[in-house]
Amino acid sequence: FFSGTGKKVLIVYAHQEPKSFNGSLKNLADEVLSKQGCSVTISDLYAMDFKPAATRSDIIGELYNPDHFNYRVECFEAYKKGRLAKDVLEEQKKVLDANLVIFQFPVYWFSMPAIMKGWIDRVFIQGFSYGIPGFYDEGFLKDKKALLSLTTGGDEGMYLPTGANGDIKYLLWSMQHGMMHFCGFQVLAPNVCYGMDNVTEEKRKEMLDAWAHRLQKIWEEKPINCQPSGYF
Amino acid sequence: FFSGTGKKVLIVYAHQEPKSFNGSLKNLADEVLSKQGCSVTISDLYAMDFKPAATRSDIIGELYNPDHFNYRVECFEAYKKGRLAKDVLEEQKKVLDANLVIFQFPVYWFSMPAIMKGWIDRVFIQGFSYGIPGFYDEGFLKDKKALLSLTTGGDEGMYLPTGANGDIKYLLWSMQHGMMHFCGFQVLAPNVCYGMDNVTEEKRKEMLDAWAHRLQKIWEEKPINCQPSGYF
Repeated sequence: FFSGTGKKVLIVYAHQEPKSFNGSLKNLADEVLSKQGCSVTISDLYAMDFKPAATRSDIIGELYNPDHFNYRVECFEAYKKGRLAKDVLEEQKKVLDANLVIFQFPVYWFSMPAIMKGWIDRVFIQGFSYGIPGFYDEGFLKDKKALLSLTTGGDEGMYLPTGANGDIKYLLWSMQHGMMHFCGFQVLAPNVCYGMDNVTEEKRKEMLDAWAHRLQKIWEEKPINCQPSGYF
Repeated sequence: FFSGTGKKVLIVYAHQEPKSFNGSLKNLADEVLSKQGCSVTISDLYAMDFKPAATRSDIIGELYNPDHFNYRVECFEAYKKGRLAKDVLEEQKKVLDANLVIFQFPVYWFSMPAIMKGWIDRVFIQGFSYGIPGFYDEGFLKDKKALLSLTTGGDEGMYLPTGANGDIKYLLWSMQHGMMHFCGFQVLAPNVCYGMDNVTEEKRKEMLDAWAHRLQKIWEEKPINCQPSGYF
């Protein structure tokens, strides 16, 4: 019996260096989940040279309103007509196939690196991931789970409520509520690896072991509360 | 007497459509501040085709550690040696020259559009905007002011403490504290224009008038509290 048999996982990964700790976390997730019987797909954004900017070229052919370019409206119309750029359609297909999406990245400026933010901006199009109505608990991806797996340069103490950066849950809010929960995702607890700027080999190994251990039972996890009233 | 005489303003602007409301807010700021005697520079990111992704090509010549690419470390070393990419150096010069930086953008997913996040990732290099030590109140840009001027699709009610999106100050936190305050900027109150998806012409005019009115006395404004202990 394999706990992940039939499950599909998408890892959206943003690090330039395959030998980085982010690369190790990504490879470990791939390995552990594959051994469970999961089918794992990886979008390695830098290796793919993924385009981050939301531009006219994301819509194939004529615009809905050529006199006034509104990215949200144009993408919504293009989505309905199957006229989104090929790279966006490919990522959307990976998301649709997935039971779980893992975002693996180093924190850049209290958020994702721009290349991953661009993935969100371009892939989570109205009509695909949400509707109006059809967001938060009614978001179109509500049958899927998602989690942030991230590394920080600064130590854990900086991200405590008393730390200079403030409680890490504040910086996670935009991503966990505004991006993931908005699309309906059941948000699992983040995997946070702190203090990569000054980490020992022993501590690295501990963090990898903890991640592997957690992934063994990932399918049993319940989502965290991402409602404004319960999150803080 | 002109209140802005000798002052320099940089507007970092991210909208694809010159006729957009973001474009109008940007043009209005340019006009009002120029009339005050300020010198205004605009970085129109989509028009510049600004590169958002943090990659190897941001460092000219040899790497500090060719065996393991660490973007922060490589950019810090390249900064010290004057070997950052030309477009990054040009933006850094604009920031250094400015007394006030205005970020003008539509909210994408509780944050900036990826093209503007990439501007932050690539321009605010260690050594230029901050040091270790040398961040938050000691950030290297502490003699400058900055503010977010943003538009939302959703109505103001969605961004109230009781709204589905939660209090807007939560989504502003990553940007105001984690990006601007981290570099030392004195953060002025954000200019938030809500509900652009369903706005009347009358309301648009009101928002433009309010922005122009505020900009008249912008140099008298005191920064908001961006400390974790005072922000929320």
